[in-house]
Amino acid sequence: MAYLQSMPKSETIKLREKHIGAACQLFFRSSPLKIVRGVAQFMYDETGERYLDCINNVAHVGHCHPHVVEAGRNQMSLISTNNRYLHDEIVMLAERLVKTMPEPLSVCFFVNSGSEANDLALRLARVHTKRKDVITLDHAYHGHLTSMIDVSPYKLNLPGGPEKPDWVHVAPVPDVYRGKYTYPNDSTSEENLGKLYADEVGKLCDEIKKKGGVCAFIAESLQSCGGQIIPPEGYLKKVFKHVREANGVCIADEVQVGFGRVGTHMWAFETQGVVPDIVTMGKPMGNGHPVAAVITTPEIAKSFTDTGVEYFNTYGGNPVSCAIANAVLDVIEEERLMERAARVGNHLLSRCEGLQHKHKLIGDVRGRGLFVGVELVTDRETRNPATAEAKHVVNRMREEKILISRDGPDSNVLKFKPPMVFTTQDADRLVDTLDRVLSELNGGMTVNVKLEMMVTPIRDEVSNSSLQTNMPQLLKAI
Amino acid sequence: MAYLQSMPKSETIKLREKHIGAACQLFFRSSPLKIVRGVAQFMYDETGERYLDCINNVAHVGHCHPHVVEAGRNQMSLISTNNRYLHDEIVMLAERLVKTMPEPLSVCFFVNSGSEANDLALRLARVHTKRKDVITLDHAYHGHLTSMIDVSPYKLNLPGGPEKPDWVHVAPVPDVYRGKYTYPNDSTSEENLGKLYADEVGKLCDEIKKKGGVCAFIAESLQSCGGQIIPPEGYLKKVFKHVREANGVCIADEVQVGFGRVGTHMWAFETQGVVPDIVTMGKPMGNGHPVAAVITTPEIAKSFTDTGVEYFNTYGGNPVSCAIANAVLDVIEEERLMERAARVGNHLLSRCEGLQHKHKLIGDVRGRGLFVGVELVTDRETRNPATAEAKHVVNRMREEKILISRDGPDSNVLKFKPPMVFTTQDADRLVDTLDRVLSELNGGMTVNVKLEMMVTPIRDEVSNSSLQTNMPQLLKAI
Repeated sequence: MAYLQSMPKSETIKLREKHIGAACQLFFRSSPLKIVRGVAQFMYDETGERYLDCINNVAHVGHCHPHVVEAGRNQMSLISTNNRYLHDEIVMLAERLVKTMPEPLSVCFFVNSGSEANDLALRLARVHTKRKDVITLDHAYHGHLTSMIDVSPYKLNLPGGPEKPDWVHVAPVPDVYRGKYTYPNDSTSEENLGKLYADEVGKLCDEIKKKGGVCAFIAESLQSCGGQIIPPEGYLKKVFKHVREANGVCIADEVQVGFGRVGTHMWAFETQGVVPDIVTMGKPMGNGHPVAAVITTPEIAKSFTDTGVEYFNTYGGNPVSCAIANAVLDVIEEERLMERAARVGNHLLSRCEGLQHKHKLIGDVRGRGLFVGVELVTDRETRNPATAEAKHVVNRMREEKILISRDGPDSNVLKFKPPMVFTTQDADRLVDTLDRVLSELNGGMTVNVKLEMMVTPIRDEVSNSSLQTNMPQLLKAI
Repeated sequence: MAYLQSMPKSETIKLREKHIGAACQLFFRSSPLKIVRGVAQFMYDETGERYLDCINNVAHVGHCHPHVVEAGRNQMSLISTNNRYLHDEIVMLAERLVKTMPEPLSVCFFVNSGSEANDLALRLARVHTKRKDVITLDHAYHGHLTSMIDVSPYKLNLPGGPEKPDWVHVAPVPDVYRGKYTYPNDSTSEENLGKLYADEVGKLCDEIKKKGGVCAFIAESLQSCGGQIIPPEGYLKKVFKHVREANGVCIADEVQVGFGRVGTHMWAFETQGVVPDIVTMGKPMGNGHPVAAVITTPEIAKSFTDTGVEYFNTYGGNPVSCAIANAVLDVIEEERLMERAARVGNHLLSRCEGLQHKHKLIGDVRGRGLFVGVELVTDRETRNPATAEAKHVVNRMREEKILISRDGPDSNVLKFKPPMVFTTQDADRLVDTLDRVLSELNGGMTVNVKLEMMVTPIRDEVSNSSLQTNMPQLLKAI
């Protein structure tokens, strides 16, 4: 069934090229998808073709969930105004979110995007500590705003990226597979790896202390854009200890990984047994609606109030955004989506591990709940990134109507972070298809892989025209 | 008629105090309003009491306009995903917005808030000019983000505000009533006043040129928070000339004043006969829904693309936000709201001018369309700000079920920027009531005005308990 469109796809592309900044890049650039419908874990193009969505963590409770749509529809027709007026939705949302947090995290600020949330988090840290120096992780991404790009090596590391400010200090990402310290090279004990990585932050703290002191440590509880990184056990606990000894505050960026995605906990920082001073959340919070938040301690909130400078965010915490976020929480609870993320995520993870035994291209499989990464390497000894192969796989999966993407500094990590309504059947279809696609790569098909390193910053970009060489030749290294 | 609430107002207040950062301030702090419904230019509290909304420029086409609500409802149930996929709503919106712009402004970026738009505008300017120094106007406000507070003297000037960075240069605001150059003191010719103020920007350009060059000049086309300032004729033309001679780019912030509010034009910069290099828009764009945009030239957009750094904004330009913004444009066109803003605005302005003849407290009346300021002074010669009286007036008007606010560095400018569906009858009611309230001030009622200067940053804040003195004594100066 084809869907109604306002114009043919060719016209959409023409207008887009004319009027939308080219820095806003399309997924599958050479043959982009026009998506006109979404239902649960599926998206539909204008011809009615259905795609299994394995990457949209924003559509957290499923595309166009009726309960969320209804909440938005209802509140939109009642009132949407700013939070200088009292409204029940904002205070109910705040109360519900605080209930999911460990003490003393109890004061909320509502904003419109994860970027705005992280910007405010850093402002709070600055006002509270009266210091500026920030420690961030390599390959981290915290948002598109000027202030966030400053602390995002994911952007700073690019050839055309801006210069790193001198108040930003980059610690190595705790990637135990291809990072600074890896298993089994440096230690077989996960805890020891955690200590080695945490000590890197400790060293930075010592250096910064000499020139005044640390303002903040900011990190995603599980690094997403950096390549679906699961830090070793004990890592954040030791990091927070170092940072607090240097009088800095600890910011947990839960924008991508929060709201139960990890399955065992509502927030990914909980898997590390820590209590941050500031938590930011966004993407899944509104299931696509622009809403985000910062939650902090009464002490830090007071420092902010004490400046006497009002914080006003025009749309932040408006009744529609809050009603939608409350509805998302309803669905997470009522449909037990956290439990589902644990169950389906474990199934997905163990099936991917099964695939690893079969395909040498898979160097590492890691994840928590419905946050899974499959790292492709051309050689399991050297762990050389299989960037071109990853590009090919993403592209072939799209032909099979399954949307996945890839990330990490070498764009060689396949990432899965589907809507939380993903089923074990969906996971099976994903893995079975991936198995087939990887087998094609092993099977000597004539394909043409451009093996030069990707200098393009577009980690998700894949091109239909990229593969046409003799595969066996290419795959000698695998 | 009372409306359904989830909890009594006292409980809402209690939860708000507990869980919402106190830096997010309530309007009428000591006796805040709980607003549960909105229809056109009216808002309703939980008891069913109706208020005439004279300040909500965000609810541009009227609170909960059915066409806008319907567009949101409809698109929410179809699909809302990011702009890495093609969609018709985003390209249609871009095409429509570009049609309202003078050439060569034709490339759009969609974001979630005016703050995000201004942040991106500055990023574009930086990347394009490869320079950093920015000229801003005194008392300007461009957003709540770290990068925007840096260029917002409205916040920097506060006692607890952050320090002004050395790359920010502040030019005097072209306020011809209480600014650096005023009528009739400095010149009776408006054009000459425009030149005097523009030359102040020229002087800054000369200074900055010595140390490298200007990155950007950023200003609201009509300054809002600074006190509803209408720059003298020719001002922006001369400013843009200075800035461009110094190779800087000119950013017009239309977040508060765009979308036809000025009545004669869609964009306030058009009243000054200029073509900016970058235009930002927000608040009214989604009638309360978080959507905003940056429109620039192909040349500047190309500089941004050429960095190779992708610009990705998770919710920016999503189908729901764009469908809503398209619906807002529909209503502006179909209900001829621009013409209405001109007609009703002129009526409101001339009636306020009538009031000025009657009440010495009114020092100045100014405006364009439905963007009007009434400046209160204790003495027409010295133009001393009547801050306490303005506070009293806002408070009394609220008792009369009319919502106005006050702004400007001395919080003595009453500001009117109602939804664009405001009628001449509404304007009459507003002015008649204001007349009555001002007459009370003249009439010797027993009131208690705290005359100390307001050091609080809360320009909109009024307290019910502030007035209980003998008024004639207080008003000697008037």
